[in-house]
Amino acid sequence: MPDAYNIAVIGATGAVGGVMLKLMEERKFPVAEVRPLASARSAGQAVQFAGDDVQVQELTTGSFAGIDIALFSAGAARSREFAPAAVEAGAVVIDNSSAFRMEPNVPLVVPEVNPEDIKWHEGIIANPNCSTIQMVVALKPIYDAAGIDRIIVTTFQSVSGTGKQAMEELFSQSEAVLESGEVRCNVYPYQIAFNILPHIERFHENGYTNEEVKMMAETRKIFSDPDLRVTATCARVPVFTGHSESVNVKTSRPVSVEEVRRLMLNTPGVAIVDDPVNLEYPMPVSAAGRDEVMVGRIRADESEENSLNLWVVSDNLRKGAATNAVQIAELLVTTGVLE
Amino acid sequence: MPDAYNIAVIGATGAVGGVMLKLMEERKFPVAEVRPLASARSAGQAVQFAGDDVQVQELTTGSFAGIDIALFSAGAARSREFAPAAVEAGAVVIDNSSAFRMEPNVPLVVPEVNPEDIKWHEGIIANPNCSTIQMVVALKPIYDAAGIDRIIVTTFQSVSGTGKQAMEELFSQSEAVLESGEVRCNVYPYQIAFNILPHIERFHENGYTNEEVKMMAETRKIFSDPDLRVTATCARVPVFTGHSESVNVKTSRPVSVEEVRRLMLNTPGVAIVDDPVNLEYPMPVSAAGRDEVMVGRIRADESEENSLNLWVVSDNLRKGAATNAVQIAELLVTTGVLE
Repeated sequence: MPDAYNIAVIGATGAVGGVMLKLMEERKFPVAEVRPLASARSAGQAVQFAGDDVQVQELTTGSFAGIDIALFSAGAARSREFAPAAVEAGAVVIDNSSAFRMEPNVPLVVPEVNPEDIKWHEGIIANPNCSTIQMVVALKPIYDAAGIDRIIVTTFQSVSGTGKQAMEELFSQSEAVLESGEVRCNVYPYQIAFNILPHIERFHENGYTNEEVKMMAETRKIFSDPDLRVTATCARVPVFTGHSESVNVKTSRPVSVEEVRRLMLNTPGVAIVDDPVNLEYPMPVSAAGRDEVMVGRIRADESEENSLNLWVVSDNLRKGAATNAVQIAELLVTTGVLE
Repeated sequence: MPDAYNIAVIGATGAVGGVMLKLMEERKFPVAEVRPLASARSAGQAVQFAGDDVQVQELTTGSFAGIDIALFSAGAARSREFAPAAVEAGAVVIDNSSAFRMEPNVPLVVPEVNPEDIKWHEGIIANPNCSTIQMVVALKPIYDAAGIDRIIVTTFQSVSGTGKQAMEELFSQSEAVLESGEVRCNVYPYQIAFNILPHIERFHENGYTNEEVKMMAETRKIFSDPDLRVTATCARVPVFTGHSESVNVKTSRPVSVEEVRRLMLNTPGVAIVDDPVNLEYPMPVSAAGRDEVMVGRIRADESEENSLNLWVVSDNLRKGAATNAVQIAELLVTTGVLE
């Protein structure tokens, strides 16, 4: 096992890629070489890593010589095109896109939930969708203690999940509304400033959006529970960073609110923020920049037996994307799966 | 039956009071005299009605001489203090606050849902909470056709539900964030700009907020169905006007998505906005200024039998408050209940 690893970051100039670089530094990931890769348009720019300027190289099929781990975060099309070349060159790919998540030979991993699944990878490990990750981290202790029969989730997703251009669009549209100027829509089909869009990604024939379909399917795969009943409604909200989720969960066996709180106190990656009397509950502005999934508003749902309501907030660029990917890289190293 | 009526508007300078005045004009309510009333602080200001400036008078127990209908929208404390005087003076009170909603001798009325309940009023008729009104209007045709067994609702509520000062706070905080200035919180305990607060009104001991408790209790009362199972999670979002709701409903008998759409086409007060292929779905910016409740994203919830997901949006100042109150006044007149 080497002391340090050569890491490629694909999409290094994007919202998630930037956080990946920062996190490897923060978490002291054993990096020998970092190789930022991006489209020809961004090649030549510099990104920061460990105090140095590192030049971004153009992503090609020849980009992966000597790379141990390739962190992909440049969209599904790029992953489909270039991940096979990275695997061919001997790298393990950790892919943040939706390209391979539902492939039967690709593990879909949240280290707090199903770390054992990294063992059966065949070169590619998929990082789940941001909204899925934070929900399964929050539900894992409940799943283990009482089983889960059904999940009904509604999301409040921030624009950074779409990317940097969406953050700029929320900024410029908000300015336009405040100054009574013209609101221009480029990234989203309608105004996102001071509005709610019940629409994330394309619509399927059954009326669900692709984001909703992903949440339902990915949750089942991560829990290795193909019969788990899940329904989702996903909405985009005018928040820069941090996804919020209203989660209603029916457990298989009774579990009290106090027991859930006690379980969560001992759950890695979860921060309980649940003291209504002192107005403590999870919010996007307090989650931004943190790696934990914040859980609060835990209460019994009296309308159905064995049911609970939870409010779950996390930084979608961190635990919802970059943190989870870097944690998978750490798992590869610490469990010896990389060799 | 007189040709026209004397109407007092209590809270005439507030967000809802202003819309009430505008709506009586728009809907050609038969007004003889309009008497705007407010606290001493606002007395002497002028409000507009039918092209005239009408001077706001100070609200006192002596304000109601000759009044036929008193529209209260100045908060629960003012309603408790002054509604009895209005009834004493011979007026029928239509109260937009939560003061009397759950009193057994006070009908809680949404004209599209339970118009018959106005008949048993004893001087006071309550207007439900904004988030409740839009949900029950959307669910009424489903309730009548297939019965409703359980409702799981998550709300995205705009700041105008709190009032004018909250709208100003969202405006000034948004400016501060965009200009990297200091964010000041007066109305809400935390920043609302570019944030989500899972907190509307005070917390009860069971962990639910008062807004959530109201939604659950009021829904049962309006449908005259004390056993109806409802659970609610209510969140404040950085939107000026228009509440959005993600509603999961389990019916007592099977009903298809197509049947629900057909039923809603024939439901007064409902506008179906549900054509995902053409990106048509309800949003706050398109609901603002409209009286209908917009329903879309209607789809089968495959995780449970007889279950559906809906997305419901309405202008909380109009149908959620002022429109519903003026409709109750119209019902009083057209059904002869006023005499």
